[in-house]
Amino acid sequence: MIYFECDYHEGAHPKILEKLIETNFEQTMGYGVDEHCEKAKEYIKKAFSCHNADVHFLVGGTQTNTTVISSVLRPYQGVLCAETGHINVHETGAIEGTGHKVLALESDDGKITAEKADEYIKSHFEDEAAEHMVQPGMVYISHPTEGGTLYTKNELEKLYKVCQKHSIPLFIDGARLGYGLAAKNTDIKPEDIPKLCDIFYIGGTKVGALFGEAVVITNDALKKDFRYFIKRHGGLLAKGRLLGLQFEELFSDGLYFEISDHAINEAMKVRKCLEECGVKVLFASDTNQQFPIFTNEILKELSEKYTFCYWKKVSDNESAVRICTSWATKEENTQKLIEDIKKVTKG
Amino acid sequence: MIYFECDYHEGAHPKILEKLIETNFEQTMGYGVDEHCEKAKEYIKKAFSCHNADVHFLVGGTQTNTTVISSVLRPYQGVLCAETGHINVHETGAIEGTGHKVLALESDDGKITAEKADEYIKSHFEDEAAEHMVQPGMVYISHPTEGGTLYTKNELEKLYKVCQKHSIPLFIDGARLGYGLAAKNTDIKPEDIPKLCDIFYIGGTKVGALFGEAVVITNDALKKDFRYFIKRHGGLLAKGRLLGLQFEELFSDGLYFEISDHAINEAMKVRKCLEECGVKVLFASDTNQQFPIFTNEILKELSEKYTFCYWKKVSDNESAVRICTSWATKEENTQKLIEDIKKVTKG
Amino acid sequence: MIYFECDYHEGAHPKILEKLIETNFEQTMGYGVDEHCEKAKEYIKKAFSCHNADVHFLVGGTQTNTTVISSVLRPYQGVLCAETGHINVHETGAIEGTGHKVLALESDDGKITAEKADEYIKSHFEDEAAEHMVQPGMVYISHPTEGGTLYTKNELEKLYKVCQKHSIPLFIDGARLGYGLAAKNTDIKPEDIPKLCDIFYIGGTKVGALFGEAVVITNDALKKDFRYFIKRHGGLLAKGRLLGLQFEELFSDGLYFEISDHAINEAMKVRKCLEECGVKVLFASDTNQQFPIFTNEILKELSEKYTFCYWKKVSDNESAVRICTSWATKEENTQKLIEDIKKVTKG
Amino acid sequence: MIYFECDYHEGAHPKILEKLIETNFEQTMGYGVDEHCEKAKEYIKKAFSCHNADVHFLVGGTQTNTTVISSVLRPYQGVLCAETGHINVHETGAIEGTGHKVLALESDDGKITAEKADEYIKSHFEDEAAEHMVQPGMVYISHPTEGGTLYTKNELEKLYKVCQKHSIPLFIDGARLGYGLAAKNTDIKPEDIPKLCDIFYIGGTKVGALFGEAVVITNDALKKDFRYFIKRHGGLLAKGRLLGLQFEELFSDGLYFEISDHAINEAMKVRKCLEECGVKVLFASDTNQQFPIFTNEILKELSEKYTFCYWKKVSDNESAVRICTSWATKEENTQKLIEDIKKVTKG
Repeated sequence: MIYFECDYHEGAHPKILEKLIETNFEQTMGYGVDEHCEKAKEYIKKAFSCHNADVHFLVGGTQTNTTVISSVLRPYQGVLCAETGHINVHETGAIEGTGHKVLALESDDGKITAEKADEYIKSHFEDEAAEHMVQPGMVYISHPTEGGTLYTKNELEKLYKVCQKHSIPLFIDGARLGYGLAAKNTDIKPEDIPKLCDIFYIGGTKVGALFGEAVVITNDALKKDFRYFIKRHGGLLAKGRLLGLQFEELFSDGLYFEISDHAINEAMKVRKCLEECGVKVLFASDTNQQFPIFTNEILKELSEKYTFCYWKKVSDNESAVRICTSWATKEENTQKLIEDIKKVTKG
Repeated sequence: MIYFECDYHEGAHPKILEKLIETNFEQTMGYGVDEHCEKAKEYIKKAFSCHNADVHFLVGGTQTNTTVISSVLRPYQGVLCAETGHINVHETGAIEGTGHKVLALESDDGKITAEKADEYIKSHFEDEAAEHMVQPGMVYISHPTEGGTLYTKNELEKLYKVCQKHSIPLFIDGARLGYGLAAKNTDIKPEDIPKLCDIFYIGGTKVGALFGEAVVITNDALKKDFRYFIKRHGGLLAKGRLLGLQFEELFSDGLYFEISDHAINEAMKVRKCLEECGVKVLFASDTNQQFPIFTNEILKELSEKYTFCYWKKVSDNESAVRICTSWATKEENTQKLIEDIKKVTKG
Repeated sequence: MIYFECDYHEGAHPKILEKLIETNFEQTMGYGVDEHCEKAKEYIKKAFSCHNADVHFLVGGTQTNTTVISSVLRPYQGVLCAETGHINVHETGAIEGTGHKVLALESDDGKITAEKADEYIKSHFEDEAAEHMVQPGMVYISHPTEGGTLYTKNELEKLYKVCQKHSIPLFIDGARLGYGLAAKNTDIKPEDIPKLCDIFYIGGTKVGALFGEAVVITNDALKKDFRYFIKRHGGLLAKGRLLGLQFEELFSDGLYFEISDHAINEAMKVRKCLEECGVKVLFASDTNQQFPIFTNEILKELSEKYTFCYWKKVSDNESAVRICTSWATKEENTQKLIEDIKKVTKG
Repeated sequence: MIYFECDYHEGAHPKILEKLIETNFEQTMGYGVDEHCEKAKEYIKKAFSCHNADVHFLVGGTQTNTTVISSVLRPYQGVLCAETGHINVHETGAIEGTGHKVLALESDDGKITAEKADEYIKSHFEDEAAEHMVQPGMVYISHPTEGGTLYTKNELEKLYKVCQKHSIPLFIDGARLGYGLAAKNTDIKPEDIPKLCDIFYIGGTKVGALFGEAVVITNDALKKDFRYFIKRHGGLLAKGRLLGLQFEELFSDGLYFEISDHAINEAMKVRKCLEECGVKVLFASDTNQQFPIFTNEILKELSEKYTFCYWKKVSDNESAVRICTSWATKEENTQKLIEDIKKVTKG
């Protein structure tokens, strides 16, 4: 069985494992105040051109979203989010667990438009009985989105302008940020990200690390006492240097971007194949997640050799699935999949 | 500088790293439903003779305590705990963050007596206005305690009896459980633990793993939907197999107990030295944490070569510090420390 | 200016004030354990034929919803609710403040259908990765709904059957229950309510009392320790007898139903007038809330003499407003309003 | 039976009831934006000489404490409080329910000294691992305390200075503020209160009102969006004018202070009697709560005619009880009690 279900099937990039072994008996202080963390922070600030940012390392995505969002909001505030946003559907109510409503906005493609955000926020503050409703206190987007789609630079600029107009922070969930930046068509560069939001995170778990997410805070007002938040949410890893050295390895010499490229290359091969075979897709995705709609017969046949992530029923006879490539996808496996898709769709 | 500050200065036991490398390109399902997790659970149930228990893997201690405690309590209940308990002092209010009061009981040695627990619980339920107060809903103990002390089997039996009498679950924080079980004088064996509580966890972070804590639920009433709790608290590691394979390695062949023994051996050398040098201690500890009281001059001198964890001021001229050994402590380092303690205390 | 904006413009029914005065210097125990509360509970159980129920008195609606919902749900569970439900839109996230997601279902008329609830619940529990999502743990409906609509007995029976099939409690927010039971067309009688849900409340604030909501718990499993919940949510009124004596007065001799009838009579006059004048309505309401759609010119003209609750913009030139009658509505004021509506709509 | 158990046995001062009746059919807007609330706010600001303060009305004490404290603290912060503080012992964990730890300081007399607060706060911020602990974020005191004791002006000034030095707000729970200000020996005047804290509340429930507490915010930084907090905690009374008109009546012409005087007069009679009869007391109280220690025989005898609040067991044969007077205490009842105390203690 070959797994295309998600982008966290394997361990870590071999260079990270080497680093682990090489540093194993170093003695360092706990909780992320060691040299590896310091170096990793510098590499990240350099890679994203945000020299005044604060960088913190956490273990996983849900933990990171919860920690960040609860650090930004006042108790009576909620977070605006596309209805498909990870925090709205796949985190078992972790955000609500910190007392905050997720204010879900309708969305076809997983993105929030500047217009919709503006309208929602304006209409709240214009309401005479506003205090009876949850106040929008921040905007959450994922880039790439859960559907693999990407904001254009212009879309992001417009959205951020709306946020700034209303003094509402913008947070970018970058669980798959590497794959977004590596997309062929994107006009967003690493250095754009810190300029177009107040806080974001760089996903390690899905892009070459064993685990780990790097939170980057560019808005000074959001920096204070952030380590208290991490600790309170169980995210202050005792052996914090494990996070440091993974990000050190990923960002000291461009490894993060390089392995992201690989995933995109493999995904584009799949996409091209789907197009050639006339397979419809749920979202037109430029990233490592592809969402073909297969007839149930075809899906059954392919599922004998491959795992996909079931996404949703499209009709009585059709289902959308997610095919994920990653830094670890073997070219030969992509090749096999492509051939099999060709075979079954020609039937 | 040689670090004796805590038991998480180094990476992981080399066998764990080997396992990581060996399995790195295996493709497994995420979130802890892979074969490594399954095997690790079986090994643990065997090692602790608790074949009907549920086992779950989480990343860190604060996360585990928060997840377990919030899964057991009803909203208006609190958790009884020694005033020195980790959840009461060193988790940034993570328990309160889930809405629960920590009901701290006075304690000299970090332990709760059966009598004190009984009295507290009885007196609550006998109060006519009980509903104006937080209801005690579970008892939390750490074994070993934060001061390195241990419950005797008899003490634990009596405490558990009180809990059962009041239908209140007992939870054992075993962040350093290995070191407790490896102590020379303890009469508690691994198989006693599941019989004398409702839920406990086996610490990996401090005993040879990179990270990871194994929660063992023996009380059927506490098993339901526990994975929801883990996810909601950000503890469901995407690459869950990393937890599985570490515990697999630690428990397939007794490694966990073996390396715990090593830490105890090193700690006992330090303890013997302290006794011989007439150094007073804060707690008489049979485990890997030793708490000497040094004069500030001596402490200053030792601190040029060694790090300790500052514990508390004892008098104007004396301070208690924590000296930790661990699975990773090098015998030569213990030897150096002992010689230096001898040297400075003879001055 | 005559107020038709809501059903809580005035104080309380004169009989309640008389009772207040009559009992003012009685000395009673605090917190709701006095004789007035006891009597009121008996009257309520008799009026609703639920002799085994537990009855508790709280002060206001948001407080009651929060207390009830947080007493029923486990931390990782959420509450199913029509998207227009009060808890979803007008309680400043009080439910989320207790850690629970409101799982909003699309609804045109403010009601949840049995089918939709069934589908949502089934689909959650059938999902292999269910633990990544909030588990539906109870169903909340309001009767009458926020749009003045009513469940038929058959609809309620079907919905409750679905809840029972899934072992999920059904909670009825009866902030305006009196007006629902007094509707001309309803086939739901007081004694049906306790049989068709697990817990409900009888609104006093909007039906003749100064304040106060009576929670009725019919499902034994939900009764335990409820007073702890009330206290924890700040709802245990020190002078609890104030709640008791109001409900005593309302239910000792049918006053609650009688004054509800009055509000319905006045509302039906308004409704008939709207129909005769060809004014469209947002919802066809049999209760004390009517939702006409006026052109902005007409609305402006009427607003010189009357207040309404602005509901929503319907088109560039049309707005829906809420007209409320209540136990306190003076017939002469209804008459004036009707005449003025006739006048302006004939223009 | 004559009740001396608490200060909320009766309804409200007759003038308040008159006001209720007189205004009953006035139509006002809901939720505290009516004229009665406006007037009451002005009267309060005048009575306490705090013309720039914000005033809000809530229903009860626990609700008020919860709302205020959760509005001031950041999530990782806790509130410093005497171990006997109401929020620490008698609110069923409502504060923890909002995610915050109550940081209890030892106290003999229910008061916090400036020195203790200073030491606690300083020691937290000096700790290198401060982020592992709950950060002290505000100080809560009650005046009078739960034991009836009072801060002197000097004590309060010193405590507030410490708070200001550390930029930590001071909150005064004034559930019985009237009785504190009416004490014979106090050197604190109404106008001192707003100058010596950042936020406080004036208790109505225990001082002549049916219910109601008036929060006064003097620190501008704490004013923003307070109504959201009230609503979120279920404290925004629909018929808000009920709160307004009660405080209007209490503060338009000094009624609050006048009826507080009465309670103090009655309490001082009791105190004098206790002194004369050689009855020991738990606290030396200048306010309406007196805490005699009776032998169990005496207590039993008195309990045939009077109710007291059982406070605690003092020895095998002695118990401390609370005797409360209030605005409603009848002189004849005090007289009877005094005579009976004399009688039984002379036995």
